[in-house]
Amino acid sequence: MKNLKKALFVLLFLSNCAHPEKTLVHSLVKKEMTKNLTREILKNGEAYVNLKELVAGGSRLSGSPGAAHAVEWAKAKLDSYHFDKVWLQEVVVPHWERGKKAEAVLTSGAAGSFKIAALGTSIGTDPRGIEAEVVEVSSLDDATLKGPALAGKIVFFNGAFDDTVLDTFEAYGKAVRQRTQGAFVTSKFGAVGVLVRSMTMNHDLHPHAGAMSYKDAAHKIPAATIATADADKLSALLKTKKIRLKLTLSAKPFENVKSYNVIGELTGSTLPQEIIVVGGHLDSWDLGPGAQDDGAGVVQSIEVLRAMKALNIKPKRTLRVVLFMAEEFGGFGGEEYAKQASFKKENHVAAIESDRGGFTPRGFETSDDKAIQKLTAWKDYLAPLNADLIKTGEGGTDIEPLHPSGTLQFGFYPDSARYFDYHHAETDTMDAVNKRELHLGAAAMSVLTYLLSEE
Amino acid sequence: MKNLKKALFVLLFLSNCAHPEKTLVHSLVKKEMTKNLTREILKNGEAYVNLKELVAGGSRLSGSPGAAHAVEWAKAKLDSYHFDKVWLQEVVVPHWERGKKAEAVLTSGAAGSFKIAALGTSIGTDPRGIEAEVVEVSSLDDATLKGPALAGKIVFFNGAFDDTVLDTFEAYGKAVRQRTQGAFVTSKFGAVGVLVRSMTMNHDLHPHAGAMSYKDAAHKIPAATIATADADKLSALLKTKKIRLKLTLSAKPFENVKSYNVIGELTGSTLPQEIIVVGGHLDSWDLGPGAQDDGAGVVQSIEVLRAMKALNIKPKRTLRVVLFMAEEFGGFGGEEYAKQASFKKENHVAAIESDRGGFTPRGFETSDDKAIQKLTAWKDYLAPLNADLIKTGEGGTDIEPLHPSGTLQFGFYPDSARYFDYHHAETDTMDAVNKRELHLGAAAMSVLTYLLSEE
Repeated sequence: MKNLKKALFVLLFLSNCAHPEKTLVHSLVKKEMTKNLTREILKNGEAYVNLKELVAGGSRLSGSPGAAHAVEWAKAKLDSYHFDKVWLQEVVVPHWERGKKAEAVLTSGAAGSFKIAALGTSIGTDPRGIEAEVVEVSSLDDATLKGPALAGKIVFFNGAFDDTVLDTFEAYGKAVRQRTQGAFVTSKFGAVGVLVRSMTMNHDLHPHAGAMSYKDAAHKIPAATIATADADKLSALLKTKKIRLKLTLSAKPFENVKSYNVIGELTGSTLPQEIIVVGGHLDSWDLGPGAQDDGAGVVQSIEVLRAMKALNIKPKRTLRVVLFMAEEFGGFGGEEYAKQASFKKENHVAAIESDRGGFTPRGFETSDDKAIQKLTAWKDYLAPLNADLIKTGEGGTDIEPLHPSGTLQFGFYPDSARYFDYHHAETDTMDAVNKRELHLGAAAMSVLTYLLSEE
Repeated sequence: MKNLKKALFVLLFLSNCAHPEKTLVHSLVKKEMTKNLTREILKNGEAYVNLKELVAGGSRLSGSPGAAHAVEWAKAKLDSYHFDKVWLQEVVVPHWERGKKAEAVLTSGAAGSFKIAALGTSIGTDPRGIEAEVVEVSSLDDATLKGPALAGKIVFFNGAFDDTVLDTFEAYGKAVRQRTQGAFVTSKFGAVGVLVRSMTMNHDLHPHAGAMSYKDAAHKIPAATIATADADKLSALLKTKKIRLKLTLSAKPFENVKSYNVIGELTGSTLPQEIIVVGGHLDSWDLGPGAQDDGAGVVQSIEVLRAMKALNIKPKRTLRVVLFMAEEFGGFGGEEYAKQASFKKENHVAAIESDRGGFTPRGFETSDDKAIQKLTAWKDYLAPLNADLIKTGEGGTDIEPLHPSGTLQFGFYPDSARYFDYHHAETDTMDAVNKRELHLGAAAMSVLTYLLSEE
């Protein structure tokens, strides 16, 4: 007790002295506070139990009752923590349903069927299905080369993830264009449908959903994804003979609907007009409950503010947890949030997004020089959590719309090894999430949030 | 093709020039070769399928038929890769069996029973069990303080893992002494048995086995571990009333038996007398099939030599994969290997051990200055695999006996978040292992092995 008093006295004394000592004190206090945040989250963290609750509500496809339920859950959860403000922000989002049927049945060349799922925003087929010969292509370029040969065909995009790319997000980035643009590119040549190899390194029987876009295509053709194990089977068959199959999809786009971003705030004590966002997206795909994508980011972002409040930290700057809607359809919630921020002339100094899963931390991703400078200066705070890697890249879909107004971008970057095992598939359940990893990630985010707030 | 020829010409020219250019060429070649090893393992790696085979054989408790089966499997596997030499090295190992019964039933104070398992080397109880009052202690120190109050009691060691310690191996190191020494320490005070909280951060109903030692205890008392969820339940009961329970264990130590280390070798091309060991331990505990502990280390070590051979690399130095027996009982295989090496005057320049699970890589652990210097110099080779962390600590139980003769120690250090979720429990199955993580670890080990061999 005596020692504590003495230490406090020295601290107070130093904090009233000239600059270098003051800096030292601040840095000691910061070190202690970031350690406290980490301890609080690892010992009393609620991210994992919150994720269990969120995931119990099922999938949260934008525009669906599941998403509406998630909005209610999130609002009630933020209310329960008694943050300074909690509110809903209206946002108009797409509404698309895959319906009950997704079938790919061989009609000639061989017998059997494949595990498929409609891609997000795809139209359906005629209820009786469409029947055509299958042509395999390895990429968009390959499809363009084949051009007229695709007329009247079902085009099977079978470009695999490159396992030798160390960062799986990079492997995804290379492969995903066939999913997003495959229908658009081949419809120009008269293709009647596309089947795209699922975006995963795994050899499995789970279709991994995801968005596609018709852009300005003159006519729209149905698009589905095929599980990797079945893609390999289909490819092997095509090596020996001509194959025809019947594709039936009951998918259907509907009119846009009203939904919400869910927002909670700890108002800044001395610089309340400077806002720091920490967020993830509340919507998910509909094949599974989106535990990693992006339930993890949602509960980690909530956890950052919960831990601050639990430790009675009054942040200098305003901290906002923002749970964005309709990221999976292209970031509608993020666009709306930035639009409102600009309209209200709010000053967002920084934004942290967690949308790469709740795996063990590695660091943060950004393309801002200033953000890189900060992360470099703060390496010592982040290294104990193994979160000191600075990766050049994007912050994330939902915070990107804030970028043009100068908001520094930070994408939480966890280990990428397992993310695409579960991504957009029915396997993205609580089993895919490890409590300790989830909480280590939340701790890394809380440390960065604190440093941004208190500098 | 023309460019390739030109490049080769320049390389050949440079390699015949003065020192700095030669160094540059060597470093370029090394960079390319370590990349090739990584690509080979990520693309064609067999560690995961090998692990499936090993794990299908069940648990591999030292001295058991399961361990004997694993020796046969490993020998056949190494033979199948046509390494330069494959052989068995005899080693005498403990033989202990837990038998069929492990029960802890409440007899007064409350009703119910707990999930327990005998600790390795523990004696059994009388077949009718022992019945006594339970006293909870938090540590060995606490037990020593309570001293005489433990006479006639069953001592319940309930010291929990400290979740706020970032490295779970460190948390384990702090907590594990109650397991290894609890019976020894309390028997001196007349305790009649011990129950030790399982060594995991998880709150689960799986007893996590492990070794204990009676040292020179005048009388031996039975020792078991209790699942963490049940430890919390028992502790809560003890806060309200006196509790008695009946402990029944059918565990029994037998005479030592003959077993084997399994060894494979790629003989060095120019420095064959300089040996580099890469290994893990073949035995496991008996509650589960030991997929992570240490099936992962076994298949990763094999994979290092497999990849070298697949790429037709003729290493300068001799590379040996050593699959050690009876690590879980204190490292009998490692001791024997070092004894034979010393007897044959073999020169082991370095040893790499993987016995911390096949999780995503972080780096390597060592206490040797020379090893640290090498890892520091090779950071650029290891960083792409996120394996460039240099952790101060031990290489591992099985390679430690080589240390006194100057062998540099390197413990493969993967991310520690999940290891103790499965450690020594029935949950340590293939479900605990991710293929990509396992192969990334093997790649990191192969890069270090290559650099050690070719320097």
